[in-house]
Amino acid sequence: MSRNFRSDNVAGVHPAIIRAIEAANGGPAMPYGNDAITKRLEKRFAEMFETELAVFPVATGTAANALSLAAMTPPWGAIYCHADSHVLMDECNAPEFYASGARLAPLPGEHGKLAPKTLEAALKSAPPGVHHAQPAAVTISQLSEAGTAYAPDHVAALAKLAHARGLGLHMDGARFANALVGLGCSPADITWRAGVDILSFGATKNGALAAEAIVVFRKDLAETLGFRRKRAGHLFSKMRFLSAQIEAYLTGDLWLKNARHANAQAQRIAEGLGAAPGVRIAHPVDGNEVFAEMPAAMAKALEEAGFALEPWAGGPDFDPKRPLMRLVAAFDTDPKSVDALIAAARKQKAA
Amino acid sequence: MSRNFRSDNVAGVHPAIIRAIEAANGGPAMPYGNDAITKRLEKRFAEMFETELAVFPVATGTAANALSLAAMTPPWGAIYCHADSHVLMDECNAPEFYASGARLAPLPGEHGKLAPKTLEAALKSAPPGVHHAQPAAVTISQLSEAGTAYAPDHVAALAKLAHARGLGLHMDGARFANALVGLGCSPADITWRAGVDILSFGATKNGALAAEAIVVFRKDLAETLGFRRKRAGHLFSKMRFLSAQIEAYLTGDLWLKNARHANAQAQRIAEGLGAAPGVRIAHPVDGNEVFAEMPAAMAKALEEAGFALEPWAGGPDFDPKRPLMRLVAAFDTDPKSVDALIAAARKQKAA
Amino acid sequence: MSRNFRSDNVAGVHPAIIRAIEAANGGPAMPYGNDAITKRLEKRFAEMFETELAVFPVATGTAANALSLAAMTPPWGAIYCHADSHVLMDECNAPEFYASGARLAPLPGEHGKLAPKTLEAALKSAPPGVHHAQPAAVTISQLSEAGTAYAPDHVAALAKLAHARGLGLHMDGARFANALVGLGCSPADITWRAGVDILSFGATKNGALAAEAIVVFRKDLAETLGFRRKRAGHLFSKMRFLSAQIEAYLTGDLWLKNARHANAQAQRIAEGLGAAPGVRIAHPVDGNEVFAEMPAAMAKALEEAGFALEPWAGGPDFDPKRPLMRLVAAFDTDPKSVDALIAAARKQKAA
Amino acid sequence: MSRNFRSDNVAGVHPAIIRAIEAANGGPAMPYGNDAITKRLEKRFAEMFETELAVFPVATGTAANALSLAAMTPPWGAIYCHADSHVLMDECNAPEFYASGARLAPLPGEHGKLAPKTLEAALKSAPPGVHHAQPAAVTISQLSEAGTAYAPDHVAALAKLAHARGLGLHMDGARFANALVGLGCSPADITWRAGVDILSFGATKNGALAAEAIVVFRKDLAETLGFRRKRAGHLFSKMRFLSAQIEAYLTGDLWLKNARHANAQAQRIAEGLGAAPGVRIAHPVDGNEVFAEMPAAMAKALEEAGFALEPWAGGPDFDPKRPLMRLVAAFDTDPKSVDALIAAARKQKAA
Repeated sequence: MSRNFRSDNVAGVHPAIIRAIEAANGGPAMPYGNDAITKRLEKRFAEMFETELAVFPVATGTAANALSLAAMTPPWGAIYCHADSHVLMDECNAPEFYASGARLAPLPGEHGKLAPKTLEAALKSAPPGVHHAQPAAVTISQLSEAGTAYAPDHVAALAKLAHARGLGLHMDGARFANALVGLGCSPADITWRAGVDILSFGATKNGALAAEAIVVFRKDLAETLGFRRKRAGHLFSKMRFLSAQIEAYLTGDLWLKNARHANAQAQRIAEGLGAAPGVRIAHPVDGNEVFAEMPAAMAKALEEAGFALEPWAGGPDFDPKRPLMRLVAAFDTDPKSVDALIAAARKQKAA
Repeated sequence: MSRNFRSDNVAGVHPAIIRAIEAANGGPAMPYGNDAITKRLEKRFAEMFETELAVFPVATGTAANALSLAAMTPPWGAIYCHADSHVLMDECNAPEFYASGARLAPLPGEHGKLAPKTLEAALKSAPPGVHHAQPAAVTISQLSEAGTAYAPDHVAALAKLAHARGLGLHMDGARFANALVGLGCSPADITWRAGVDILSFGATKNGALAAEAIVVFRKDLAETLGFRRKRAGHLFSKMRFLSAQIEAYLTGDLWLKNARHANAQAQRIAEGLGAAPGVRIAHPVDGNEVFAEMPAAMAKALEEAGFALEPWAGGPDFDPKRPLMRLVAAFDTDPKSVDALIAAARKQKAA
Repeated sequence: MSRNFRSDNVAGVHPAIIRAIEAANGGPAMPYGNDAITKRLEKRFAEMFETELAVFPVATGTAANALSLAAMTPPWGAIYCHADSHVLMDECNAPEFYASGARLAPLPGEHGKLAPKTLEAALKSAPPGVHHAQPAAVTISQLSEAGTAYAPDHVAALAKLAHARGLGLHMDGARFANALVGLGCSPADITWRAGVDILSFGATKNGALAAEAIVVFRKDLAETLGFRRKRAGHLFSKMRFLSAQIEAYLTGDLWLKNARHANAQAQRIAEGLGAAPGVRIAHPVDGNEVFAEMPAAMAKALEEAGFALEPWAGGPDFDPKRPLMRLVAAFDTDPKSVDALIAAARKQKAA
Repeated sequence: MSRNFRSDNVAGVHPAIIRAIEAANGGPAMPYGNDAITKRLEKRFAEMFETELAVFPVATGTAANALSLAAMTPPWGAIYCHADSHVLMDECNAPEFYASGARLAPLPGEHGKLAPKTLEAALKSAPPGVHHAQPAAVTISQLSEAGTAYAPDHVAALAKLAHARGLGLHMDGARFANALVGLGCSPADITWRAGVDILSFGATKNGALAAEAIVVFRKDLAETLGFRRKRAGHLFSKMRFLSAQIEAYLTGDLWLKNARHANAQAQRIAEGLGAAPGVRIAHPVDGNEVFAEMPAAMAKALEEAGFALEPWAGGPDFDPKRPLMRLVAAFDTDPKSVDALIAAARKQKAA
C-alpha cells in the first residue's frame, strides 16, 4: 500500500495499458506511425473532440509542450505563461530550445491561473516593432501548477484576447483528464470550442507508461509538427507501442475513470487534512492535487510515518514553521493509505 | 510467419522485455531515473564494458545520436560522417538542431565505411581560423549503412586521427549487437579501447520496445548530457520502464542471442539469394543486413509473393533494371520465411 | 541647434572620429582585423584598464551584449538581468538567439539597478538539477536604464555573489564613459577590479559612427569569441575602419571629454527642469540621462516648441496626466538648446 | 602603389563614399533607419531594379547571406550551394546559425558554377518525408568563387527548377557590380527577371567601408527580415551612415565605374600573365578575379618582388609544383602595378 503522495508520476502503469502493449506485439508492423493502431488514433481523437484535428503522439510532456509552442512562435516571439508554470520552471529551457530562442514571458496569477485582465494588460504594454520580443503565444495548464482548473469561459476569455492579437493558445494538459472530470465538461468545450489551438494531451501521469498526444485543432499549425517531432528525435520507430498506450487509455473511458478515482482521493485528503489542527488548504482542489500549509512538526511526523509529501517551492513569503506541502493522488491511490495519512495528521497538535 | 524484410524496426518486442516492463510495474518508484532499476544500469554497463562510464537512457536512436554529437561539438564545429550515414540522411537535421547549428561534413567511403586516409585528408585540408567550420567530431556507425562492421583496428585508426586533432569520436550503435556478434570481439575492444568517446547503444532494433543508451566513456563529456537530455524532452518521468527494457535486453545475453539469430538469417539470405540467377550481393554481410542487386523482375516477383524488401537509395549510377534491394533480418525472423524467400527468388531467370 | 533630446543615438559622429576614418584610408590593409590599427587596439585597452585582456570590436551594442552573454552561458542557463534592462526589453531576443536558447531572468530593482540582496535571494531560490534553468550569468548596465550608475562596491557585491556560484558577470557599457565620468573612478576600478568578467565597451552613443568593443578580462571566456563573432556575421573585412573609430575615441581622452560635456548638460537639464513647476526628477542623474515626470501640458508645450523628448515606458502605475519623459544629452548637445528647453518648461504652470 | 592582389577587401574606401559619410554628419537624425537617407534608399533601389522591393542595409556580406537564407529556409531545410561557395566554406556556420540548424547541401560544378542538371538531379534524388532534410533554398554567387559570372538564362534555368519545387533562390552578390559589368545586362535581368528572390547586394568589396544591402524581391520573404536583422544585432542605431555609403555607391554609377575599372585590370592581368611562360589561366575571367596556375618558382619570385597573391585552396589534385594563385583587382588597382606584376612574371622561365 503506497504511502507516496509526492506526485502522480511515481505511480506505475495501469494493467489495461500493459495488456494493450502486449496485444500490439503480434507480428510485424510498419514503423514511424504507419501502423494500424496509430492510423486509428486520429479518428478516435476526432470523435472524442467532435472536430477535425491532427494528432502527434510523443513520449513526454516536455516534448509535447515544447513542440507545440515552437509551432506557434517565431524565434523573436514571446510566449505568455504563468510565473509558476511547468514550461517555465521545470523544463530546463526546452521551449526556448525548440522555438529557436523565443522567450517565455511569465505573468502572475492567483491559484496558479492566468487572469484575462493580466494578459490584457501585458498585451497592451507590449511594444510593437523590431526592437522587442513580439507576443506570439499564450500557454496555460490543466491542471495549473496550483492544482486548479480553468473553466471554459475562463479559457475563452484568454483565447479571445490572444486571437485578437494573432497569438496562438496552447494548453498543457499534463493532467487534462483530472481537470476535465473536475470541471464536468466535454473535451471539446474546454479546448477548441473555448479557443485552444493546440493541446498537450497527457496520459503518462494518469496511467500510461510514457505517452502524450499533441492534439492540433488548427490545420495550419499541424503542417510543421511532423518535421519538428522527427528532428527532435521524438518520432518512435515502433510507434505502435506508443499509440497502443493512448488507445487503451481512451478505451472504455479508462482515462476518465482513472481521473475520477484520483480526484476523489484528493478530495478525501483535502477534507481530512483540512480538518486537522493547524492545516490550511492553500488552493481550491479542482483535480488530484492538494496543497496544504501545515505545521512543520506535522510534516515531519508524516514523513517519519513513511508518508512521502512534496515540499512546495519556497518563494519570498515562505515560512519554515508552516511549510506548504503538495499531495498528489493517482489512479492507483489506495483509500486506506489516504485514511492512514489523515489519521497520522490528526494525531498532531496545531503549531 | 512474417515475410517483411524491410527493416528490423518492423519487428515487435521480445517477450522477455515485455515481461520486464510488467515486472517493473510493482508499486511506486522515484521518477526521472531515481528508481532502483536505473541506478543498477550504470553498474551493469560498467561491468559489461570493463570500465567506468556514464549511461543516459533515451527512447530513440536519433535522440541518442544528436545528444551525443552535441556534447562534443561547438556550434561552429564540423562533424565528419559517412555520406550515407543515418545521422546525415535520415534524422531531419537533428544533429544540427541539437548542436546549435554545427555542421555535418560528409565523406565518401567504400561499403559504407569511413577510411582513415579519407579522414586524414579531410582533416589536413580543413583550414584553421574563425572563417571556417572547425573539425570537432567524427561519427561512425555499427553497423554502417551498408550493413558492414568496423573492426577494432579500423576504429582505432580513426580515433587516433580524431584525437590527435582534438576531435571526439562517436559511434552510432543502432545495430551494435549485430556488429559485435559479427566481429566476435568484446564490447570494450570495439569501443573505448579503440578510442570511442561516446556510444549510442541501440536496443530497439534488436528486441526492445523503444530504448537506447548513451554510453559515455569520457567523464568530461558526460557533464552536460543530463541537462541536454532534459531540455530536449527526452528524460522520462517513469524512467524505470525505459531502464527495465535495457536491463532485460542485457540479462542472460539476450541482446547477443537476438543478434546471433538475426545475423545467421542474414547469412542464410545472402547465400541463398546470392546463388539465385542474376543476383549480386553488393556489400559484405557483417551483421543482419543484406544488400542485393537483382533483376527488376525478381524484385517484382518477390513483392507479388508477399515479401517486403526495401528499395535502396538510387543515387547517380542507379540502374532501374537492376535495383539494389535491402533485406534485414531481425531477432524474430523465421528461417522458414527465409527459405520461402530464397525459393521464390530462385524461380526467377536472370535478366 | 538641435532640440532633440530623445536619445544620444540621434547625434552624429565626432569630427575627430571622421578624420580617423579618413586617415585609415591610406592604401591597402590586411582584412578581418589583421591590420595595424586593430593590432594596436588590444595594447591600448590593456594600458587603459591596467591589465591583460582581449578585445573584439563590433559595430552594435546588441552584438556586443549577445556575444558576451553567449560566451558565459550554456543553452540551459539563466542570465540574471534587471527587469528594465536593454538586453531584456530592446534587443528582440538577441541574447536568447546567441546563447542557443538560454534564458534571461528578470529581477526588480530601484532606479534601474540590481540590488545584491535581490540577486542573493534569486540565487538562493534557484533549484539545482536538470529540470531547471541553471544560473549562468549576471548582466548589469552602465548607465542603467534609469540613467543611474553602479558604484564599484555595488558591482563588487554583485560579482562576489555571482562568482561564488560560478556565474560570470557582464557589464553592458553602452554609456560606460558617462558612468565612469559620473563615478569619478578608473576604468579598472569599475570593471575587473570589481569583478566584471566581460564589458561591452560602448562608443557609438558617445561620438563614434558604429563601434563597440567587447573587452574580455577572463582569458578562458575569450577563446570562443572569435568564432562566435564570425559566425554571427560581425567580423568586418575592412576592420581597420571599425578599430580606427575606437582608437580615435580613446585618443586624447576624447571619450571622457565627450562624456563630461554630455553629463554636464544633463545636470543642467535636471537642475533647470527640476525647478520648473510640477516637475519631479524621477531618478538620480549619474550620467547623461534625465528622467522627468512632468505635467502632460508641459510635455505637450515642449513638443510644440520643437523639443523632442522620449515618453518613457508606461507600466502599471503610469499616469497620463504626469508622463515620465526621458531627456538625453550627447557629446554635441548645445547648452543654448538646454537653456531654451528650460525656459520653455518654466513658462508652464504646474498641473 | 599597391602590389597587393590578394583580395578586393584589402582596398580602402572610395573618396566619394567617405565624403558621403561626412555629409551625413550634419546634426541629429532619427535612429534605426528612420532617417531621411535610409528612407530614400528603397526608392532608389526600386528604380534601379525596375520593380517593387524591400531593402535591408547591413554591414557585412555574411550577415546579408545568413539573414537572406534564414528568411527562406525552415530549420529542417536544405540549402543547395556550390561546394566551393563562400556561404559554405568561409562563413563559420553562419547560415546554419541564422537558419536555426538548417543545412547547406553542397553540389559540384565547373568553374564555380552550379549546373541546372546538377540541381535537377539533386532535387530528384531528395526524398520527401519527415526523415530527411527538405529542399528549401538555392544560393548562387555573383561572381562565383571561381570568378565566373552566371548569365541570365543560367540563373533562370536554376530558378525554374527551384520554384517548381517551392524553393527560394538567393544570390550572393558580394561582387554583384563586377558580374553585372562583365555580363553587360541590367540589374533586373540578372535578378528578379531571372527568378532571384533575394539578393545580397555587395558594396564593401567595391569601394564602400562596410555596407551591403539585402534586396528582397518577394514581399512575403521581407516580412520577417526586420526582426531577424535586429535580433542578430545588425540593425545600426546610426543607420544613416550605412545608408549614406550605399547611396553614394549608386550615385553617378560609381558602383559600375569602380567595377569596370577593376574588371579591366583583371583582364589586363589575365592577358599579361596568361602569356607568361608556364602560366595557365584556370577559369574564365568574367569579373575582377584571375585564377592563375603557375610554376612555384614564379609564385615565389612574385612574392619576393613584393606582390601579394592568394594561394588558392589546395584540394585533392593540388600540385605544389604548380600552385593555383588568385589575383583580385579592385576599384583602386593601379595599372602600373599590374604592368609591374606582369613584367616580373615574364622574367621567369617555365618550370
